Amino acid sequence: MLTLFHHSMLAPSRFVRLIFGEYGEELSLIEELPWARRKEFLALNPAGTLPVLLAENDAPLVGAGVIAEYVDETRGALKRERRLFAEDVFQRAEIRRLTDWFLDKMDNEVTRHLVRERVFKPFLPGQAGGGPPNPQAIRAARANVRQHLKYLNFLASTRDWIAGARLSHADLAAAASLSLLDYLGELDFTDLQAARDWYGRVKSRPSFRPLLTDRARGLAPSARYADLDF
Amino acid sequence: MLTLFHHSMLAPSRFVRLIFGEYGEELSLIEELPWARRKEFLALNPAGTLPVLLAENDAPLVGAGVIAEYVDETRGALKRERRLFAEDVFQRAEIRRLTDWFLDKMDNEVTRHLVRERVFKPFLPGQAGGGPPNPQAIRAARANVRQHLKYLNFLASTRDWIAGARLSHADLAAAASLSLLDYLGELDFTDLQAARDWYGRVKSRPSFRPLLTDRARGLAPSARYADLDF
Repeated sequence: MLTLFHHSMLAPSRFVRLIFGEYGEELSLIEELPWARRKEFLALNPAGTLPVLLAENDAPLVGAGVIAEYVDETRGALKRERRLFAEDVFQRAEIRRLTDWFLDKMDNEVTRHLVRERVFKPFLPGQAGGGPPNPQAIRAARANVRQHLKYLNFLASTRDWIAGARLSHADLAAAASLSLLDYLGELDFTDLQAARDWYGRVKSRPSFRPLLTDRARGLAPSARYADLDF
Repeated sequence: MLTLFHHSMLAPSRFVRLIFGEYGEELSLIEELPWARRKEFLALNPAGTLPVLLAENDAPLVGAGVIAEYVDETRGALKRERRLFAEDVFQRAEIRRLTDWFLDKMDNEVTRHLVRERVFKPFLPGQAGGGPPNPQAIRAARANVRQHLKYLNFLASTRDWIAGARLSHADLAAAASLSLLDYLGELDFTDLQAARDWYGRVKSRPSFRPLLTDRARGLAPSARYADLDF
């Protein structure tokens, strides 16, 4: 069983768990606090970022994008119609573009700010950026949520899955991000029926179940979080 | 000839030009001002980010990482010992990790802040963030330069090229970032001889020549910028 250094409240970490879940492969999970900058962890990843996968030979694979490509090269390519990636070069580019959109762009504009302010800051030590939530940062992040959900709604209303005809890394990246907003009760699908239907389909998958039992220290999930029929 | 929407003062754009340069393929370059949010450009890339490559069928490929993978899949894989990527899955992961390091992490901590403050702000309109340079932002970015150069020095002193035995995407990503610091006169290799030697080797490559004639509006390059024997 491979080991994943992760944090359950970070979208790129959730994304990797969903990929392995889809391929039916269990991971040994080690929760790492990214701000702790633990010496042993920095030896694996001098950038100090999550997630990090310890692969077959204990080689540390750093970052959600790098891990996703690795899993596809070593496992996905053999999965035929269950593969979460494509063969066609343009479809591959589209899957990668959308994976980056939700794990980088949306994370930078929305997700990790809400998580930092609402989940991490209350128990972070002061010198690591702890303290009361910053209402301005929360407002700024909330102001950006809608544009990402609208883009998702556009994708979901024009394609079977967001990058094309098949479930792919892109769906799991978007679902990883949305699932955190869901946890925080920040998900509002008013007038975005295609996005809501899409999220319902992903959320019902067996790969999602372990995420629905995740609990952040000090903050219970929204009432709808574990509800598949939201 | 393929078309690249780019900006000569952004590291991810330079990286893509270097890859095509190494493979001896000319690009038709269109300089795009990322803050302009031109309607026709947003139709190609709703994120509004650079670079964007118009590929063979005019499909827009968005982002340096996506483009690099595409170029490898369509060209690099046929180049044998001139390939800028690897076959081994762990070497591939290492090349991707370091490409991300220099185009994402270093860009976020150093490069694009110095470029924004010193190159873009003086002629940006006020509502797009223009104005006099912010000395605090410049100081913060400068404080981070050394740690990235030290990491590069460590890599360059333990490997032939920074990700392994062969020139790869990782070298071009690091060189794209360093070349901007070089332009701005922010490159100090004191006590970092391996990094200096490595940069001299990359800078002397024919793929680098077009970059050395780039000029930013309103800011001449440092005296050493076009000097291969710095």
